[in-house]
Amino acid sequence: MVLEVFHVKEEDAVRVRHQDLRATTTALFMKVGVPRADAELATDVLVAADLRGVDSHGVSNMLRSYIQGYNEGRLNARPNWRIIRETPSTANIDCDAGLGIIIGPKAMDIAIDKAKKVGVGIVTMAHGRHMGMASYHAMMALKHDMIGTCMTAPGAQVLPTFGALERLGTNPIAVAAPAKEEPPFVFDAATSTVATNKIQLARRLDAVIPAGLIADKDGTPIMEEGKVPAEYKMLPMGSVREQGSHKGYGLACVVEVLCSVLSGSGFAAMNARGMAQHYVAAYSIEAFTDVEEFKLEIERRAHGIPLHKEVIQWYDSICGEMDVPRLRTV
Amino acid sequence: MVLEVFHVKEEDAVRVRHQDLRATTTALFMKVGVPRADAELATDVLVAADLRGVDSHGVSNMLRSYIQGYNEGRLNARPNWRIIRETPSTANIDCDAGLGIIIGPKAMDIAIDKAKKVGVGIVTMAHGRHMGMASYHAMMALKHDMIGTCMTAPGAQVLPTFGALERLGTNPIAVAAPAKEEPPFVFDAATSTVATNKIQLARRLDAVIPAGLIADKDGTPIMEEGKVPAEYKMLPMGSVREQGSHKGYGLACVVEVLCSVLSGSGFAAMNARGMAQHYVAAYSIEAFTDVEEFKLEIERRAHGIPLHKEVIQWYDSICGEMDVPRLRTV
Repeated sequence: MVLEVFHVKEEDAVRVRHQDLRATTTALFMKVGVPRADAELATDVLVAADLRGVDSHGVSNMLRSYIQGYNEGRLNARPNWRIIRETPSTANIDCDAGLGIIIGPKAMDIAIDKAKKVGVGIVTMAHGRHMGMASYHAMMALKHDMIGTCMTAPGAQVLPTFGALERLGTNPIAVAAPAKEEPPFVFDAATSTVATNKIQLARRLDAVIPAGLIADKDGTPIMEEGKVPAEYKMLPMGSVREQGSHKGYGLACVVEVLCSVLSGSGFAAMNARGMAQHYVAAYSIEAFTDVEEFKLEIERRAHGIPLHKEVIQWYDSICGEMDVPRLRTV
Repeated sequence: MVLEVFHVKEEDAVRVRHQDLRATTTALFMKVGVPRADAELATDVLVAADLRGVDSHGVSNMLRSYIQGYNEGRLNARPNWRIIRETPSTANIDCDAGLGIIIGPKAMDIAIDKAKKVGVGIVTMAHGRHMGMASYHAMMALKHDMIGTCMTAPGAQVLPTFGALERLGTNPIAVAAPAKEEPPFVFDAATSTVATNKIQLARRLDAVIPAGLIADKDGTPIMEEGKVPAEYKMLPMGSVREQGSHKGYGLACVVEVLCSVLSGSGFAAMNARGMAQHYVAAYSIEAFTDVEEFKLEIERRAHGIPLHKEVIQWYDSICGEMDVPRLRTV
């Protein structure tokens, strides 16, 4: 199974309780100057990724980079983030080099609040830093009976179709929608073949990755499976033109327009390494339709559609008449 | 070039002036009972596709299906479409079986109006019919200095990854953003490998299509190039799991949630053939950032970044000092 290469092998693994992981991680954030509440929030985003099995965006891959960023001054531990433009349904935030895993949830709170008031809330974020697992922010909408969206444009790392130089970020799109008794619908995928973090993780684990995930240092797609070379480049979703990489390229541009250009930050390829721009949205389901009905549909897909017994009788009778196998009930 | 198979060959083509095409097409719509203003609007959407070279969504492929739909009563020529729920930034419309190429622009007008008032406008559309070229609706936002989005979920035609039965629509996503002197940014792509219409067009043109676009009637992806068989099934963007079709599958579900579930219409796979649900959005750029700046970025990418001559002098001097080739100016 292709995805397994991105998990640590059982024989290499040391198990840690998530509570202990939280305590230590929070303490580390506080040591580099992050206030306690923000440190706990950052920790929650990281550990949520580890709990969901998204190791690429959990503590293993990200924490060392964040700590280094704070120590070297690229990350601002006490950012003066503020809304620089606002309407009833929108806001644009200047993140002041604050980490996205801390300011993202605050932006999403603003989006949710706007959605409560006027139906939809959309917040862009300029001068930001790494956003972590995008679905964390999208999923914040769920408990408010809202659909949540998160996109982020983290600097140029991905080749355009036919390109040899990186001009796009991995630019993920995350969408979360609530269901009734079922787990929520959660989509979270890079518009590149995979997240950069997954390739870095594969390198650390010395794992063999599938064909078509990356290009060599000259930009030529590597179309055989193998280990990750020392120098490589990222490809857009679809890998090559024949397999639809123009759609991945186009979607990455859409994320760039909504995160980078709309927030007034400039295309990621023109920005300094480490900068990132973001977009979060909350849709009040109640603004469009009945929440219970919305959730019900997903419930019915899982548990079956309740039909009146008279309808079942009609089915039985018509199926008999027309020589069709009887309708199977749950 | 892969895309050429979807265009009529020059030796098979008869050229028609777009004005004449408009007159005849409008007359046909009026003959089946569509009021003049709506007939002209529908014609504009179709001919816009033909003018842009999107033959799959122009008169050749679509008009016969629309006329048949009106004649057979599946399309309502005088729908009583109405807003069934509304907030300052959102609306949900019941289309009353009206054609999407006619009601879509009206929905987009409502979205644009809301965006003018509160920053963003999002309109979902229940009980609709075919939406035509999705980018037509998205592009309506451009002349208002807005970003436009359009998605549509036109019934189950596409296999989920590993699936053998169609459970998703081709579910395209279109996004348009204005640029200054440059043509606008316009993205419009099905979340299937290609639009269904393109495959139908390839069949009519007896064209050879690339590998991986469709599956055979049992759901097995056809991984060699060839002509379109009589029975076939559509694949999600990415074709197969190894090439990322789970991302196409997931994006199709996102479109389904935003169009079908959010409009209260139910998942497309549960609806009657020919039904379609839609989602349009307009984002006021002014709500987030300065419109001129937003457009400028795209202009600068094309025409160069204006630097003060002092900066150029500094470049010349530092490049000389550090033995780096001189900065090339436009």
